[in-house]
Amino acid sequence: MSYPFLSKINEPSQLKQFNLEELRLLKEELRAFIIDVVSTKEGHLGASLGVVELTLALHYVFHTPNDLLVWDVGHQAYGHKILTGRRDVFFTNRQKNGISGFPKRSESKFDAFGVGHSSTSISAALGMAIASQLKGDVNRQHIAVIGDASIAAGMAFEGLNHAGVTKANLIVILNDNAIGIDPSVGALKNYLTKAKVGHKPKQDNIIEALNFTYKGPVDGHDLPSLIAALEELKSKKGPQFLHVITKKGKGLQKAEENQVKYHAPGKFDKNTGELLPKNNQDLPPKFQDVFGLTLVELAQNNEKIVGITPAMPTGSSLKYMMQAFPDRAFDVGIAEQHAVTFAAGLATQGKRVFCSIYSTFLQRAIDQVIHDVALQNLPVIFCIDRAGLVGNDGATHHGVFDVALLKSIPNIIIANPSNAIDLRNLLYTASLGLNNPIAIRYPRGRGEIKDWQQAFEKIEIGKAVELKHGNRLAILNFGHLLPQVESAVNSHQQKEEIGLYDMRFAKPLDFETLNQIFSTYQYLITVEDAAVEGGFGQSVQALAQAKGFTGKIEKLGIPDYFIDHGSTEELHEEVGISSTQITQKIDFLLDK
Amino acid sequence: MSYPFLSKINEPSQLKQFNLEELRLLKEELRAFIIDVVSTKEGHLGASLGVVELTLALHYVFHTPNDLLVWDVGHQAYGHKILTGRRDVFFTNRQKNGISGFPKRSESKFDAFGVGHSSTSISAALGMAIASQLKGDVNRQHIAVIGDASIAAGMAFEGLNHAGVTKANLIVILNDNAIGIDPSVGALKNYLTKAKVGHKPKQDNIIEALNFTYKGPVDGHDLPSLIAALEELKSKKGPQFLHVITKKGKGLQKAEENQVKYHAPGKFDKNTGELLPKNNQDLPPKFQDVFGLTLVELAQNNEKIVGITPAMPTGSSLKYMMQAFPDRAFDVGIAEQHAVTFAAGLATQGKRVFCSIYSTFLQRAIDQVIHDVALQNLPVIFCIDRAGLVGNDGATHHGVFDVALLKSIPNIIIANPSNAIDLRNLLYTASLGLNNPIAIRYPRGRGEIKDWQQAFEKIEIGKAVELKHGNRLAILNFGHLLPQVESAVNSHQQKEEIGLYDMRFAKPLDFETLNQIFSTYQYLITVEDAAVEGGFGQSVQALAQAKGFTGKIEKLGIPDYFIDHGSTEELHEEVGISSTQITQKIDFLLDK
Repeated sequence: MSYPFLSKINEPSQLKQFNLEELRLLKEELRAFIIDVVSTKEGHLGASLGVVELTLALHYVFHTPNDLLVWDVGHQAYGHKILTGRRDVFFTNRQKNGISGFPKRSESKFDAFGVGHSSTSISAALGMAIASQLKGDVNRQHIAVIGDASIAAGMAFEGLNHAGVTKANLIVILNDNAIGIDPSVGALKNYLTKAKVGHKPKQDNIIEALNFTYKGPVDGHDLPSLIAALEELKSKKGPQFLHVITKKGKGLQKAEENQVKYHAPGKFDKNTGELLPKNNQDLPPKFQDVFGLTLVELAQNNEKIVGITPAMPTGSSLKYMMQAFPDRAFDVGIAEQHAVTFAAGLATQGKRVFCSIYSTFLQRAIDQVIHDVALQNLPVIFCIDRAGLVGNDGATHHGVFDVALLKSIPNIIIANPSNAIDLRNLLYTASLGLNNPIAIRYPRGRGEIKDWQQAFEKIEIGKAVELKHGNRLAILNFGHLLPQVESAVNSHQQKEEIGLYDMRFAKPLDFETLNQIFSTYQYLITVEDAAVEGGFGQSVQALAQAKGFTGKIEKLGIPDYFIDHGSTEELHEEVGISSTQITQKIDFLLDK
Repeated sequence: MSYPFLSKINEPSQLKQFNLEELRLLKEELRAFIIDVVSTKEGHLGASLGVVELTLALHYVFHTPNDLLVWDVGHQAYGHKILTGRRDVFFTNRQKNGISGFPKRSESKFDAFGVGHSSTSISAALGMAIASQLKGDVNRQHIAVIGDASIAAGMAFEGLNHAGVTKANLIVILNDNAIGIDPSVGALKNYLTKAKVGHKPKQDNIIEALNFTYKGPVDGHDLPSLIAALEELKSKKGPQFLHVITKKGKGLQKAEENQVKYHAPGKFDKNTGELLPKNNQDLPPKFQDVFGLTLVELAQNNEKIVGITPAMPTGSSLKYMMQAFPDRAFDVGIAEQHAVTFAAGLATQGKRVFCSIYSTFLQRAIDQVIHDVALQNLPVIFCIDRAGLVGNDGATHHGVFDVALLKSIPNIIIANPSNAIDLRNLLYTASLGLNNPIAIRYPRGRGEIKDWQQAFEKIEIGKAVELKHGNRLAILNFGHLLPQVESAVNSHQQKEEIGLYDMRFAKPLDFETLNQIFSTYQYLITVEDAAVEGGFGQSVQALAQAKGFTGKIEKLGIPDYFIDHGSTEELHEEVGISSTQITQKIDFLLDK
């Protein structure tokens, strides 16, 4: 396929020479190029297709990078990347050493702010706008493009609430397509849905109440209208709000029709949109499905059980519970803070609350875990999905801090099952009613066990399991890297000397087993898919010092820098938690 | 003073036998009783005086504790405590082993949810309401009483946004007095201010947009009107919103006139309201003032400097900067998440951003520190006030988790100056421009140095200071407990054997100094006013193991349970970080 217009664009300033007809042709090319590349290289599709016109209009009307443009979340910024000098490397999107799937300051001067988590754009752009105001730079514009799912998060409200009392040159553009990754929820969404192109939702609307000038709604696929609206806002001072209505997946019929699946569809036929068949039939289940399906099983026999997800019914597989027990499963929207305290409120009334949150998003609710759950010692069950390195989403999404963040909180139990059966049994154990809150972390992707739906067995809290006895070197495994560890141990020449322990819990530590280990072995390796600094290994090493263990301890896990994107396997190799790397560490210690 | 009506009330159900005239007399007694006790025992005054009528009306109309009542923050719940069986112990308020200054589940069945941090009430009450709905308990009511400062926080919006799409029996009562601890800010506050008793702010208002039934505004000091409004709401199903306008400090003229000072005024004359003179003239400054005044000095010479506080201009002393440079200092309201990302946005434009947040409230913005600041390595300067045990505010407010929460985050520097001069010099050093974000933590209260406004000196990042050489035992001090440590060392018989190191930084650790210490001493004591689990001491001990240090290490700091309220001195004694306790640890080690 050829792209006569798009292939000329190396800087968005070039757009200004185009007339409307040329822009119209360019938008077709841009859409086709995104489909072309993403169909084979994978990535986030629907969001970027939905803002092709908006992206062109923004770069046409404003003077980026002098005008500062912040994309909220950034799933929708592929067009922006392609127009801002990254067309020829776009095929490396989300691959190791390739460009990031999200806007990133270090990647381009056109990426005004690094994003990944939702609802940061208004605050960041307001900071930039106030900085310009203080410098007397009155003509510069500062633009936040935010979706209707993201604007419903509390943080976005905080940004609007502050911006409304400033005179900053801030333009908030609501990209309203009624969907995030899953369909948007909440009262604000229902309110916004009343808006039709050309008709405000109400005369005195919620945005105007916050002291923004409200304009719209505008048809986000009508390029001349968009350009006209932006031209009008460009010269205005003070906080402006433009409501744009778009369709996620616009231009690819399949993607328009099935917006959840085409958020990040994997490989597909670029002409028909048909997904290429994935041969998942014989694979072990995803950990998220082990959670989601087990929860339904447990809920069938225990009416106290309820489930919560902040805007991730599909990704967390809470959708199974939502289908089976719609009254007892809650998608609260992008609202992690609310999700956790709402869980606490339910728990005060005796409910067994399974609150499923991705590790990286739990960072949004640490205070609520401390103040509303742990301090009151309410036995909320946190199901922490996407724990550890998540692969191609990269630095903003790796779930590597949860262990360290939770470890200092009194009362909480921190578990990381090493396989699907243990996860299932931990969920079962928690459903029986614990005396404490518990965090059960598990990774993105699949384990190795296919025959996982075994009869439930209770797991003893705080107790490690000796998987293999040895006499010189012990591996203390915390979590789902156990297959890599077992592979390294079982293929090792000095296998007999190596002990292997599945510790299961970072808190409370199993002091009894650890004391036995300290007195039996000369060398220890701790393994975790989490930050080493402040993590499980550091606790073990500090305890080892207290107990007089003088042997060498290698702490494997995520080192103390931010890890970029790449396949999970590549990243495991990079940070030293692949099977090969674990073997090398064993060699190093045993050869001493 | 006698309280003929109040003295009869042991359960709020007794109120139902009162007629309106008796309730009127009772409210006078309740107000007088609060003033009487707080004038001598200290505590939070203004908020509770403002809701005397509302408190009586709620307990009169509803059937607590079956109907569930959640007070947001809880500063305003003194009347509630007094009416619910705690009148005779109210004089122990906030004292060690006395009742808590906040509602607390373990203290009373009438305290439906423990509070302290703002904006949790809607989420918690909604959780309770959904639990009742699932149980088929359709007549139970669930009430959140929230102030206008608290409702502007993002978390409250998240709760409203979810509640609005449920049919839960939730009543949100907005206690609108236009002030939190400092005057409320933000666009929502301006909007609400348009409401006068009997007149809604707008026809289609922001609350109705979120699908709540809006009622009010009602005069919150007109008991019959309040009772009538609540009676009407009581029988309604689904989410209801009652807008009540009150005056903070109501009934004590001085408190009405100076609402910031009378939030928690200390001792005062109960008849005139006059504050009793505090003899602070010759005391060393509060750490918050060292921050606030130094920032003004630095800002005078560096126009890049800006300051941010989330709703704590008085408490953090950012008010000095707000007075001196109103354009460069921002009170963003109760919005810690926004505060941090707003700071990041400013930092992208070259501003030197001092973002002042209490340690306990920084818990609200951990994700923003990770994702928006540290990941982009923006050199935001976090000034973490109220770090360590804060005393009488108790478990919800101790600032003991920040070190552990921040430690696993790459790029960030964590400092805890040991005195006012070091704090001042760290602020100066940071103002010169660092390559990394930095967290500078300092405690509530005063240090010991009066003559603190010395010429600025640059502090070397990551470098410890040897204060005293020794040969057997080294104390590794991290932070503001240094006076206690010095007192223990200097009075010790074996003083010569004791080395003393002010480590200054928990991250990066000073490996060079630590290696010298490991090779010089037999025993180590680490001291920090922060959680030991995941804290500075644990890092040191893990490193000691790695370096082959086999001596005994005592880690002093906050143990792994939630610490109740009491004076800071009492709590230091309890957890083992008083001078006396440090001496005992020294004795224990040296006598070995």
